[in-house]
Amino acid sequence: MKIAIYGYGNLGRGVECSVHQNADMELFGIFTRRAPETVKTIYNTPVYPAADILNYKNEIDVLIICGGSATDLPEMTPALAEHFCVIDSFDTHAKIPSHFENVDAGAKRGGNLALISAGWDPGMFSVNRLYATAILPEGTDYTFWGRGVSQGHSDAIRRIEGVKDARQYTVPYPETLEAVQRGETPELTTRDKHLRECYVVAEDGADLERIENEIKTMPNYFADYNTTVTFITEEEMKKNHSSLPHGGFVIRTGKTGEGLCHSHTIQYSLRLDSNPEFTGSVLVACARALNRMSSRGMTGCITIFDIAPADLSALSPKELRAHLL
Amino acid sequence: MKIAIYGYGNLGRGVECSVHQNADMELFGIFTRRAPETVKTIYNTPVYPAADILNYKNEIDVLIICGGSATDLPEMTPALAEHFCVIDSFDTHAKIPSHFENVDAGAKRGGNLALISAGWDPGMFSVNRLYATAILPEGTDYTFWGRGVSQGHSDAIRRIEGVKDARQYTVPYPETLEAVQRGETPELTTRDKHLRECYVVAEDGADLERIENEIKTMPNYFADYNTTVTFITEEEMKKNHSSLPHGGFVIRTGKTGEGLCHSHTIQYSLRLDSNPEFTGSVLVACARALNRMSSRGMTGCITIFDIAPADLSALSPKELRAHLL
Repeated sequence: MKIAIYGYGNLGRGVECSVHQNADMELFGIFTRRAPETVKTIYNTPVYPAADILNYKNEIDVLIICGGSATDLPEMTPALAEHFCVIDSFDTHAKIPSHFENVDAGAKRGGNLALISAGWDPGMFSVNRLYATAILPEGTDYTFWGRGVSQGHSDAIRRIEGVKDARQYTVPYPETLEAVQRGETPELTTRDKHLRECYVVAEDGADLERIENEIKTMPNYFADYNTTVTFITEEEMKKNHSSLPHGGFVIRTGKTGEGLCHSHTIQYSLRLDSNPEFTGSVLVACARALNRMSSRGMTGCITIFDIAPADLSALSPKELRAHLL
Repeated sequence: MKIAIYGYGNLGRGVECSVHQNADMELFGIFTRRAPETVKTIYNTPVYPAADILNYKNEIDVLIICGGSATDLPEMTPALAEHFCVIDSFDTHAKIPSHFENVDAGAKRGGNLALISAGWDPGMFSVNRLYATAILPEGTDYTFWGRGVSQGHSDAIRRIEGVKDARQYTVPYPETLEAVQRGETPELTTRDKHLRECYVVAEDGADLERIENEIKTMPNYFADYNTTVTFITEEEMKKNHSSLPHGGFVIRTGKTGEGLCHSHTIQYSLRLDSNPEFTGSVLVACARALNRMSSRGMTGCITIFDIAPADLSALSPKELRAHLL
């Protein structure tokens, strides 16, 4: 099966690496809005102009769209779904229902199958919330993120005047996390769950107090959290904060039995050295499933909730039953 | 949708409790090989003789078979699959392929859909092994069980002459588990992973040394493990060892990126106060999916690998996307 990548940033590179780890796939090419000759790929993958993509309709089984959720994906995914089986990692949770409708309409117009919001959250974390809730209908859910770099929050800091570079780590409070892991079910506000640690490189002569204040009071991003701001040099940023680790925890504690006398805790957790490479690996496993489901005649938009786990694996159903069940 | 239970031991009671927690289901009744009037159910569920079950073919949507894997299920599931949509929790891993073939044949003869080996291992642990392997094809898997009661091992001890009662706890070695959780990938033998703790009530005057020796050298069950044996009184057994807790960990560490430079650890874990009630809750969620998949016309045998997560949930696809994705 032939995969193509549309958009070549950190996530696109993660997908490129992942396809190389899966013997049943090959990478047809990378489509970019930049000048193709300026793009250096990891495995000498061919690079094409994004504008030419419709010329390759019959050579691509699944197109993995690696754009940003703010402005790229709401445009790209519905439009490309008319011509290709597509996957994206759209992660603006509140806008998933409308994005779903748009992509569904596009995919149905073209008779294609599309998958949105794949990755780990939304994605594997969502699947685990669903399994846990279906098994334990009477219970309480918690999701903790981190310790890891939030690219959205880092970008928000970078937009402040006088900021040259920034990195934001989301950090769950260890005592709170441990209480939930023990099966306690506290009521938690946003502020109780996560600390936001910011490392900032300021322009020469910038007003550090103003920058710190603008970060800490920024609505949606920081105002509802305890936030620390540490100013560092460009060298320190490069040396200590150049990787993109992330992870987190989905935990559900629920009750069963006569008088709900028994308690059960289900936990799913990730510890990732590279957020974009892990996300890319989820997208590639989903591409395999999408290709199979599409060849059974399915069209329209789906999510990871609609994929039977067996379809994600390169192993046959018989091998799966013999070795993994 | 109407559920019935076939076999009413610990697992059957767990299923009875779980159905009462799910508003979209009702419990038609319990079928037992005992005299129905001797069976006391938790929620006054009607009890019928197992021999009469074919009289109720049209009144049951899904039949959950709660028998033992050693002798009950290999007979019951293929036979009942000819007449009902059935689910079992067959857990003899090595015999799953042949059980699958037998149930598949029975279900196809009757035009029914059947699901085998649901629960947590096989079941949710298997699903997590599959997801993790599909996402990180280059990696290492570990499954740890416990701390919890193994009913099979407890039964094996009870069969020794001079043993009145016994309880066996499977206990993962904490340092080994923690090393794997940190992302280390040691090569581990059976003996390195789990300790087997046995609590035994002996008959008056029994030869304790012989019993301890018979336990520790029992092939398949104990010979390959470090095993401790503690003799206790009947009162201590009742007071301290009457519940059936269990749980465990599925952990995969895999590598991605250029030169496989990045490491990721995926972990799924369960801490269960009651093994049969949690297993029963998984079976009931699977019954919902089976009923839906059957009404789409599917027949034959499937496993939890073939169920799209959305089918397990009482929520609509739209609600799932809005609230859990």
